[in-house]
Amino acid sequence: MSNNAAKEVRAALIIIGDEILSGRTQDANLYYLASWLNQAGVVLGEARIVKDIQAEIVDAVNLCRAKYDYVFTTGGIGPTHDDITSAAIAKAFGVELVRDPEAVAIFAQYYTPDKMTEARLKMADIPAGATLIENPVSAAPGFQIENVFVMAGIPAVMQAMLEKLRGRIKGAEPVKSSTITVFSGESAIAVFLGEVEAEFPGISIGSYPFYRPDAAGAGIVVRSTDEALVDAVLDRLRQGFAERDIKFVDGEV
Amino acid sequence: MSNNAAKEVRAALIIIGDEILSGRTQDANLYYLASWLNQAGVVLGEARIVKDIQAEIVDAVNLCRAKYDYVFTTGGIGPTHDDITSAAIAKAFGVELVRDPEAVAIFAQYYTPDKMTEARLKMADIPAGATLIENPVSAAPGFQIENVFVMAGIPAVMQAMLEKLRGRIKGAEPVKSSTITVFSGESAIAVFLGEVEAEFPGISIGSYPFYRPDAAGAGIVVRSTDEALVDAVLDRLRQGFAERDIKFVDGEV
Repeated sequence: MSNNAAKEVRAALIIIGDEILSGRTQDANLYYLASWLNQAGVVLGEARIVKDIQAEIVDAVNLCRAKYDYVFTTGGIGPTHDDITSAAIAKAFGVELVRDPEAVAIFAQYYTPDKMTEARLKMADIPAGATLIENPVSAAPGFQIENVFVMAGIPAVMQAMLEKLRGRIKGAEPVKSSTITVFSGESAIAVFLGEVEAEFPGISIGSYPFYRPDAAGAGIVVRSTDEALVDAVLDRLRQGFAERDIKFVDGEV
Repeated sequence: MSNNAAKEVRAALIIIGDEILSGRTQDANLYYLASWLNQAGVVLGEARIVKDIQAEIVDAVNLCRAKYDYVFTTGGIGPTHDDITSAAIAKAFGVELVRDPEAVAIFAQYYTPDKMTEARLKMADIPAGATLIENPVSAAPGFQIENVFVMAGIPAVMQAMLEKLRGRIKGAEPVKSSTITVFSGESAIAVFLGEVEAEFPGISIGSYPFYRPDAAGAGIVVRSTDEALVDAVLDRLRQGFAERDIKFVDGEV
């Protein structure tokens, strides 16, 4: 919809875990990461949820790392047999999994020697050439290899790791967005919205209907990296809604 | 993990919408559909969230419909310019978008002739050869073309459409699952769980850690279509946890 694809910074998210696909666990990371990236000026271009199967993870990672500026993964870096993300990422990059001395040192600070089990040490195995992502919640680190950021699946840990990445993620100009709420079915304004979007190159207009006991209508969201353009489009929309006797208010309600 | 892939019935979900990827809207359909399919004996093999871009939708649909028994899509079938799912599905199948008389008749029951706008009628355009999926909530139907089921993005509407599909979706034998909760870090049991999974072909064992103020541990979920096998593995796990002085209880806590 926008004509500024060239200067966009784009990312993909790969959520790894049978438990999400079986409905056992409700994912909370997509929504959080999508908002976080949006605020950082990075466009989340797609997300995939894949099973704990090495070939599926390898394929998704290799497709996405070629297509996007950044790739984030969540899940599968714990100590159990179904935690296969680190090995899959190593395979995707064609490198060995190596025991990272820095990660071992982190565990040595957390655990007495008798608690340094092989299962725990497995979490210190990362692809050769990767650098650690600190985990201030529960020690076991994530890692970055090239443009791929491998994080935990537990939301509190994922969110803490993401904060540690702020300096490593370079966004484009953040997207400005503004909403007008109309109290009308989408059908009454659909043609008009299409015309306005065509009239203002560089703008994206989304329409998100709502139905509530007290009111029905749609949130009309105008987005662009150019704030003056957003304002001009908002003026054009207000004028058009008024001409059509469509009730509206600025903002979300 | 399981050795019964041959008799599995497998599905993919494609969630269509910029609003999910920008963090504006939190998706609720993945979790609902994942649970629904699991209960119906269908394995959700992957899910993708894609932008409102025709080529992205076409690619995802064509890849998934070749790979899976069923493909479900949610979102993008409303009346506005950013609702491009129906046209994209027609393109994926190489057919025309045609105005469906049955869909027009449904709208004629809901709306007086002066409300039968072109925007509304656009929602009666479906790919040639598709059959309707009834929408008991807000009239505008979804549709099925071959093994692809196209549904609304609004959760209440999606859920109502899914109920209408019960007779059209044929699952395999439903997967039985049972949980034991252990009050121990995953590291203490990781090797043992791997050994048990290797010992019992056809079984899948997942380990899902939790950290709460009152307790920490992991839910150990045993899954198979063979209930007797699940019971045998549960016995083996209980015995092994007892031998290792790991505190556990049956069920989720």
